[in-house]
Amino acid sequence: MVWDLEMLARLGLSATGVIAFAASGALEAKRREMDAVGIITLACCTAVGGGMIRDVLIGAIPVAALVDLWMLALSVLAALVVMVLVRTWERLRIPLLLCDAVGLGMFTVDGALKGLAFGLHPASAVVVGVITGVGGGILRDILAREVPIVFRWRSPLYVVPALLGGALIVGLSLAGWAGSAGMLGTAGLIVAIRVVALRYGWHVPRGRGARSGQR
Amino acid sequence: MVWDLEMLARLGLSATGVIAFAASGALEAKRREMDAVGIITLACCTAVGGGMIRDVLIGAIPVAALVDLWMLALSVLAALVVMVLVRTWERLRIPLLLCDAVGLGMFTVDGALKGLAFGLHPASAVVVGVITGVGGGILRDILAREVPIVFRWRSPLYVVPALLGGALIVGLSLAGWAGSAGMLGTAGLIVAIRVVALRYGWHVPRGRGARSGQR
Amino acid sequence: MVWDLEMLARLGLSATGVIAFAASGALEAKRREMDAVGIITLACCTAVGGGMIRDVLIGAIPVAALVDLWMLALSVLAALVVMVLVRTWERLRIPLLLCDAVGLGMFTVDGALKGLAFGLHPASAVVVGVITGVGGGILRDILAREVPIVFRWRSPLYVVPALLGGALIVGLSLAGWAGSAGMLGTAGLIVAIRVVALRYGWHVPRGRGARSGQR
Repeated sequence: MVWDLEMLARLGLSATGVIAFAASGALEAKRREMDAVGIITLACCTAVGGGMIRDVLIGAIPVAALVDLWMLALSVLAALVVMVLVRTWERLRIPLLLCDAVGLGMFTVDGALKGLAFGLHPASAVVVGVITGVGGGILRDILAREVPIVFRWRSPLYVVPALLGGALIVGLSLAGWAGSAGMLGTAGLIVAIRVVALRYGWHVPRGRGARSGQR
Repeated sequence: MVWDLEMLARLGLSATGVIAFAASGALEAKRREMDAVGIITLACCTAVGGGMIRDVLIGAIPVAALVDLWMLALSVLAALVVMVLVRTWERLRIPLLLCDAVGLGMFTVDGALKGLAFGLHPASAVVVGVITGVGGGILRDILAREVPIVFRWRSPLYVVPALLGGALIVGLSLAGWAGSAGMLGTAGLIVAIRVVALRYGWHVPRGRGARSGQR
Repeated sequence: MVWDLEMLARLGLSATGVIAFAASGALEAKRREMDAVGIITLACCTAVGGGMIRDVLIGAIPVAALVDLWMLALSVLAALVVMVLVRTWERLRIPLLLCDAVGLGMFTVDGALKGLAFGLHPASAVVVGVITGVGGGILRDILAREVPIVFRWRSPLYVVPALLGGALIVGLSLAGWAGSAGMLGTAGLIVAIRVVALRYGWHVPRGRGARSGQR
């Protein structure tokens, strides 16, 4: 197998996404004061959850996480690093949201490309990208009994950058421009929009009739 | 492809179920005061969730929602209509339960017939029908951190009409009578039982030793 | 088909796991004061949930629970027995944890062996065993809006005995020693570790910086 730049970029996307989501899961578990096994377990579920849902829906079975065991190994490693570095259970919200944003960007691009590779309609591939990007975080939040990040009130843009990025990478791919630069650029763009939205509190309007003020 | 009455009835079942469940998800999101993206997202999850679970369990992959993109488009449309029409976040419980009942009826019949079409044992097809019918609502309630409707205390009959309707349509199908009238009649029967049970507070007894009075 | 001791042991594992997990689901539903249909439904979800997740992830579709209908029949039966025998909604925590432990042991071994039979890498088969063992209980707890048992604070060893038992049965199988004695012994070992850990309050340390005392 010849390794070219594109495959390396693709692998880099996956690995970065796994590390970032695993860290977000470990941080959430820390916040919830879970024990060491709980931290590692939630890290693994978050890191491979989105990809598992994607693979099951498009029929890529056995799912990647059971074939490419480095994903689970990397998740455990990331959880251990979080456990060693983070000695507090407070003020973990911001690092958690940042890790989650990185995972969102990487996995959306990775998922959309895998959807295309499985011969789905371009619009379906965008949906698969979004599902892959948001799936792990939803699973993490359900398991930790947290309001899923997608649905949090005044949650700054979350699904929107994933949708935009998914559409962009599918468009680039159809145009033959989804090389390493296109992938990394699109993933970076999703992360950037999400982080800027978090920083400046950008969010989606709630439509008519909503109360203002309280949650 | 020649379109006959049966295929039209089948398509009508699916489309009605998608619209009804999408509306129920949008209403639940409204009640929870989610933003526009949250409303659309929860509507989509509710509308295609039950069918996705069904397709994954019986091996119909890629799942229908990723192939027949009109389902997601219709869900988004239904969510937008709810957002325009509904200007309050109060008194949405009854419309929500009615939409959910319609979705339950349509999807149970559709799911049971798909189970049969995939060569499952008739009893399994009934189970697949029930899973399809209740799956979307369970997903909606888990994502919105609500007690799943199936398990609510004093919840009037929910699984029971689905089971009866599933058994009926499978029986009709085996007898060769699952034409458009049989499908629509069975789906209507499930909706009717559920709505009458809601109206008159019919529910299943709780067995011995249960406290009376409080939830 | 010739029935030998190994097949009987394998079937015994499955059946015992189904009964134990169904009982744990029924007890949880009792504790939550659900009605008869809720009790039966939660029992079924718990009993076949872990195996469904396993089958979907490894590609054994249609999933076993839709083919081997005795599993659902046995789950309903176990739920009915619980409903007849248990007349109170109090003091059900200990029996629930014991049933859960038995299900954990049986399903971990069964899941790991099915993973191997589907040609997965031995390490993946261990992961599949753990997912099968813990999946039903996680589903039960999510549906009942309980903190998932895997993540409970100070929860005595749960994932650890499953991991050890999964590794043991995969090792035995590779060595050709996974006969009926090996299967039942390994399953019994998992149950024993879990029960002893529950009895004596063994648990995993929480790492640095954790508060001591409160939840």
